[in-house]
Amino acid sequence: MKNVKYGKCVRCGKTYDAVPDLTNCECGGILEIVYDYEYIKTVLTKEKLAARENRSMWRYRELLPVEEDTPDTPLRVGWSPLYEEPRLAEMLGIRKLWVKDDGQNPTASLKDRASAMAVAKALEAGAKTIACSSTGNAASSLAGNAAAAGLKTYIFVPERAPKGKVAQLMIFGANVISVKGNYEETFKMSAAAIDKYGWYNRNAAINPYLSEGKKTVALEIAEQLNWEMPDYLAISVGDGCTIAGVWKGLKDLYAIGFIDKLPRLISGQSTGCCPLNRAIQTGEDWYPMEENTLADSIAVGVPRNADKALMAIRESNGIAVNVTDEEILAAQRLLGKTCGVFGEPAGVTGAAALKKACELGLIEKDATVVSVVTGNGLKDVANAIAAAGEPLHIEPDLDVMVKGFAERGVTVE
Amino acid sequence: MKNVKYGKCVRCGKTYDAVPDLTNCECGGILEIVYDYEYIKTVLTKEKLAARENRSMWRYRELLPVEEDTPDTPLRVGWSPLYEEPRLAEMLGIRKLWVKDDGQNPTASLKDRASAMAVAKALEAGAKTIACSSTGNAASSLAGNAAAAGLKTYIFVPERAPKGKVAQLMIFGANVISVKGNYEETFKMSAAAIDKYGWYNRNAAINPYLSEGKKTVALEIAEQLNWEMPDYLAISVGDGCTIAGVWKGLKDLYAIGFIDKLPRLISGQSTGCCPLNRAIQTGEDWYPMEENTLADSIAVGVPRNADKALMAIRESNGIAVNVTDEEILAAQRLLGKTCGVFGEPAGVTGAAALKKACELGLIEKDATVVSVVTGNGLKDVANAIAAAGEPLHIEPDLDVMVKGFAERGVTVE
Repeated sequence: MKNVKYGKCVRCGKTYDAVPDLTNCECGGILEIVYDYEYIKTVLTKEKLAARENRSMWRYRELLPVEEDTPDTPLRVGWSPLYEEPRLAEMLGIRKLWVKDDGQNPTASLKDRASAMAVAKALEAGAKTIACSSTGNAASSLAGNAAAAGLKTYIFVPERAPKGKVAQLMIFGANVISVKGNYEETFKMSAAAIDKYGWYNRNAAINPYLSEGKKTVALEIAEQLNWEMPDYLAISVGDGCTIAGVWKGLKDLYAIGFIDKLPRLISGQSTGCCPLNRAIQTGEDWYPMEENTLADSIAVGVPRNADKALMAIRESNGIAVNVTDEEILAAQRLLGKTCGVFGEPAGVTGAAALKKACELGLIEKDATVVSVVTGNGLKDVANAIAAAGEPLHIEPDLDVMVKGFAERGVTVE
Repeated sequence: MKNVKYGKCVRCGKTYDAVPDLTNCECGGILEIVYDYEYIKTVLTKEKLAARENRSMWRYRELLPVEEDTPDTPLRVGWSPLYEEPRLAEMLGIRKLWVKDDGQNPTASLKDRASAMAVAKALEAGAKTIACSSTGNAASSLAGNAAAAGLKTYIFVPERAPKGKVAQLMIFGANVISVKGNYEETFKMSAAAIDKYGWYNRNAAINPYLSEGKKTVALEIAEQLNWEMPDYLAISVGDGCTIAGVWKGLKDLYAIGFIDKLPRLISGQSTGCCPLNRAIQTGEDWYPMEENTLADSIAVGVPRNADKALMAIRESNGIAVNVTDEEILAAQRLLGKTCGVFGEPAGVTGAAALKKACELGLIEKDATVVSVVTGNGLKDVANAIAAAGEPLHIEPDLDVMVKGFAERGVTVE
């Protein structure tokens, strides 16, 4: 890879050749992919990008850690829509707002970006099989992207995994192991199997390429805004890999001179599980926390990408905002009603944090903001039902209808 | 509209001015929008299209029945991916196969194309409110597209409507009336309310513009294949509006000289509810049928667009293929496992019909085929669970895992 220098430990600084099956540093730290920006500047210009037909994450190939002859992965991942939302901006009391709906990905979450990258690297490594342990979007995105590429998958889930998500995995033909035990036991079993069989490892705690896939959401936002960056970028935070990836993408663009400003990150976590935001707020190290939130995809008490995530929030002079489950569901309704965007609870936690930050006066009135929705609400219908309330349930009679809506404050007209 | 001549009844031939709130002919027949192809040829070329940035259904504006100054609707509807599937083509014994995944639309179904058109026409009509009765994808796509455009919606559903779909409507802020009664009573109540309050009517049985929105799926397929049409196009059929729209789009392109060949349509219906295919197979008129299929979105015993649909299948020298629920679920697994595409049962019925047609020897070995998946599997998780089977449920022990998979014929390696 001419554009990549090496992998570098974010903890001790040791560097490693960027081989396809790169894992953690021997010190236990996670690696960051370091690019040769001077080389990239010679091969990538804004004009070249603008002329490119490819509308997927692979349009940013010069900024991605793949060999030049590695094929694009089959599913169309990325280039999700960025909607300008003047009505919601006005409601929040800010100048401009855009919503990036990353639930519009093949398996309906931002995780497709990381899984597509994992598939590309697995193919480079000559792997036939790829594996991970997960209960959620990482698993389904891996299963879908690997199936399309003709790779086998083994996916380990704890027995409490929701049936719907398991069904998605089975439809994609994954070999799914439902482990009688908790997540920790599941993770250990997957690690032992990966070690024994030599499968390619799709695990954001270990594989440094995954956040490079995720960073493409930031590259797209920048290009979709014609390289004029907003003042803030709000996003949901669980494990930390996503916000770290977003920040990496922004810094890459800054380094090659495509943008001249870096937005401040707004890190949205649930009050019931916010170890990273707590560290930001107290200025101390992070430590584990219980997982008390309905936003299951970000219910991560022991974030594996804490180092990278905290660095990202701090470097950006970011804001950490925790929101209750009720505030998350309210944000889900607000985005649905005002924007026509249906996000899962974990997907709209960044938007909930933005709303709260506005209410707390933390965001200036002339600010411009991008809010990223990271997953589709159809992933979690049960919570949507909880959020949405009941329809008017009546006999087929127009007068009864009018009366019923009047009781809800709606004038039928 | 310079590009549109008038609406013409498909039954009696009477013509009507193409006003925004056009409904059925006085004879009860449904109208078809008739274009001025000579004019369109002067304003649209393939080169002009190729240079267009817009990647939504509105890129085909010259072929759509909207005023020149009518704005694009806000959600990014259309330009869904068309995947070439060599492995599945080989399994089916045909030369080439492409899968168009129209579940990759904002509210996760092809119906977004019709609802976006309805919203555009409602805005032209100066309407503030838009209404329909439906239990499924038409309802959720209307709710989402209207919310994004700032229009109010009233949506009437029978009380048996699945909770998940109702939740989607509520999230989008629709005024949802759950009617204590069957679908017929629900439909009548909606008609009475629409009549009384003058709301814009989004109903494929009445509004002739909706199939013009749906036809954009065919326009995209043609452009994505560089105007070289396949021998066959397979699609699921319920009410008939979609297959009629697909055919209309193909005929439009043929009329302006963009394509020089029309594919034969493969109409996929469920054996449990196939009034249109039965009419094709017997050569007689259609008549109502019971609705015995798990593919709920195409369980339409009294299709409202029968005239247009039957005309489309017959004109194309099409093939009508009925499939059982088991065959539908098998197609769902096959597309998931081989293509990484997760369709809802009604969404993959066209693919199931294609598979069966191949098995029956109805399709030549050197044929090229496009199969359209019309809705996302996340819409109907219960049936996905039924289709997908159970994961391996075991203690965390690698030997037990190997033994368990061996019993399923899978060698862990």
